[in-house]
Amino acid sequence: MVRTSTQRPASTTTSQPLSGIRVVDLTRIYSGPYCTFLMALAGAEVIKVETPEGEHLRHRNARGGAGLPFAMLNANKRLVTVDYKQPEGRALLMRLIATADVLVENFRPGVMNALGLDRDSVRAVNPRLIYASTSGFGEEGPYRDLAAMDLTIQALSGAIATTGFPDGTPVKTGPAFGDFSAGIHLYAAIVTALLHRERTGEALSPEISMLESMYTSLCSNLGAAMSGKEQRPSRTGNRHGGLSMCPYNVYPTTDGQIAIICSNDRHWDKLTAALGRPDLGEDLRLKTMEGRVAHMDFVDSQIAGETAKQGKDALFALLSKSGVPCGPVRDLPEVMADPQLRHTGMLKEVNHPEYGSLVLPHTPLRYRGEPRADYVPSGRLGADNETIWTSLGVDAEEFARLREAGII
Amino acid sequence: MVRTSTQRPASTTTSQPLSGIRVVDLTRIYSGPYCTFLMALAGAEVIKVETPEGEHLRHRNARGGAGLPFAMLNANKRLVTVDYKQPEGRALLMRLIATADVLVENFRPGVMNALGLDRDSVRAVNPRLIYASTSGFGEEGPYRDLAAMDLTIQALSGAIATTGFPDGTPVKTGPAFGDFSAGIHLYAAIVTALLHRERTGEALSPEISMLESMYTSLCSNLGAAMSGKEQRPSRTGNRHGGLSMCPYNVYPTTDGQIAIICSNDRHWDKLTAALGRPDLGEDLRLKTMEGRVAHMDFVDSQIAGETAKQGKDALFALLSKSGVPCGPVRDLPEVMADPQLRHTGMLKEVNHPEYGSLVLPHTPLRYRGEPRADYVPSGRLGADNETIWTSLGVDAEEFARLREAGII
Repeated sequence: MVRTSTQRPASTTTSQPLSGIRVVDLTRIYSGPYCTFLMALAGAEVIKVETPEGEHLRHRNARGGAGLPFAMLNANKRLVTVDYKQPEGRALLMRLIATADVLVENFRPGVMNALGLDRDSVRAVNPRLIYASTSGFGEEGPYRDLAAMDLTIQALSGAIATTGFPDGTPVKTGPAFGDFSAGIHLYAAIVTALLHRERTGEALSPEISMLESMYTSLCSNLGAAMSGKEQRPSRTGNRHGGLSMCPYNVYPTTDGQIAIICSNDRHWDKLTAALGRPDLGEDLRLKTMEGRVAHMDFVDSQIAGETAKQGKDALFALLSKSGVPCGPVRDLPEVMADPQLRHTGMLKEVNHPEYGSLVLPHTPLRYRGEPRADYVPSGRLGADNETIWTSLGVDAEEFARLREAGII
Repeated sequence: MVRTSTQRPASTTTSQPLSGIRVVDLTRIYSGPYCTFLMALAGAEVIKVETPEGEHLRHRNARGGAGLPFAMLNANKRLVTVDYKQPEGRALLMRLIATADVLVENFRPGVMNALGLDRDSVRAVNPRLIYASTSGFGEEGPYRDLAAMDLTIQALSGAIATTGFPDGTPVKTGPAFGDFSAGIHLYAAIVTALLHRERTGEALSPEISMLESMYTSLCSNLGAAMSGKEQRPSRTGNRHGGLSMCPYNVYPTTDGQIAIICSNDRHWDKLTAALGRPDLGEDLRLKTMEGRVAHMDFVDSQIAGETAKQGKDALFALLSKSGVPCGPVRDLPEVMADPQLRHTGMLKEVNHPEYGSLVLPHTPLRYRGEPRADYVPSGRLGADNETIWTSLGVDAEEFARLREAGII
């Protein structure tokens, strides 16, 4: 059972691997906030800095009604406001940065310079600071100044060209793969830099390009495209990207679909037995992967004919028991109710102070036998202003004046 | 310019953040090998251990002809063989593990136990070892024993249900998102554990579930599904997952497609001006995001009518110059030739000793101003057997005997 705390995040959590690390977080929307969410759930003290209007995502959710994305990505963070476009606000932010181990930002290249928050200015007040950035393309190269968002990076990276059916329109991936790939790579680079600083004293500046972070995930497709044997389709629907395995597809059921793979001949034997089709298992043309691949349309149609007779969950149970790799195509309410994700504590129902009852995720970065960190739901804009700014020496009078002036 | 070394990886690379870290790598195919690829390119000494038959991926590629996926994922690694299913091979592997900082494996839960390589046995010879695992679902819970592959995890995670067109069949993501998400999360957890060991002396055991690693990337879709206003489609094609932005789509051109997003009203003004459609920019119904969303079909058809007159690269240049977020839908040969990826050194042409001329990626984990590590192409099975086994005290006679007996 995962404990859920009603307290705002404490500045010290002694039992997690990043405890004692202070992070100033200027990021917005998805890529940067996912990175700092993982840091916060690993015990870092993440101070999310918003301008007094609040992050755009708060308002987008207010329109949509759910608040779910903001709540998902901003748990366990301290929340402060400061208008760092004004000189006094920038000075206050600098005082905070002077106390930090890590600064994280995901503005377009050049914006931090325009704000007077470029790496040199910031490291002048804090030479040990790890200054971490992510953007569409990184800080150099012909595309550096282009605006980038998940969809445009999916287009440029080849993700769209390789998704969809061969005779259909290419389509983006449903998950925001570009944003989240950048976010987890940024976490990886920051922690690598923290380790390097611990070992050598030197503070590196991690810099993640969304475009670069997606490339290697296309290795099956790139291999097929380069195999040179024949013209390969750039999209293979739900079939194997290299069209070199069969069965490998998504098949119809009475109430949806199920994904089934036979990556070797034993799986094929088990599948045909479980579906009550020994005739297929005994068919000499289909005994080997090569044979099944050569008769892919026939195999797929025969398997589909059998799966179409049953429900997806019954098939999942039947084929799993038989040792055939498979998985029902789950819609989102089913995913949120998944017994595995509930069992491990990855998902839990939280009574969120602003948004009511929500299903919220913990971190996938787990260590065997170690308890999950206490979960602290995201809070209202500026929830930790008093705690944080006071700790930097801002007294009550000054605090009132800054609030009055719209600086915090 | 990235230097490419013709030497096998050296045991010490002084200038990279993970230099001096030794990794024993038992992983296969994609998730684990991507993790250890990133470690190797960050300077760790990664020793990839294969049984004498060689990793399955070597043979799959031999069939496909390209060898590209194996080459992509196994650069900068030392390559040894040992049949650790035999007692003598297992003992030899244990001697290697005794010298390591990290062990990485991606077998199904239970396999390492069956091999006598479970965590307790291994840490008995090396208490400081970080024992790292990834699998479909992790080491506990109702699904722990199920076989898992990228496609089945995409089905169970909701990635398939959310990808594709509303009136069409759900479809997997072209990139192997499940495998690579697990791989980069595993890297992140291992480096977090290395940092924790450096700070406290304690060795954690990272454990990544593919299913858990994908969940949060669906936050837009989950937010829309939970917004409660109306029944939302689980798939929105190339439109925004929450259907709350317009234009946000992939549009036809004379030679393919282009992705275009207007995330605010300024983008809309720039887009309509650049396309020579001031009438759209002046249309009062379309002045606000709310208005454009309400007339989404009309807006999309008008923009498509204009983009269909030009080539995708000319549109990319025109709209980028105007400050409109966009990106052409690139096919894989175009991605491999991308000027940005070439400029930053992420991609380069390598004359591979086994596979000939290939375009191969470096790591996306970058640090501003720091040079990329020398790139060492993947090698033949057992290329570093002599160096590694000799360093553990296996003499020439013993080496010959082990080879003769099929142990290495």
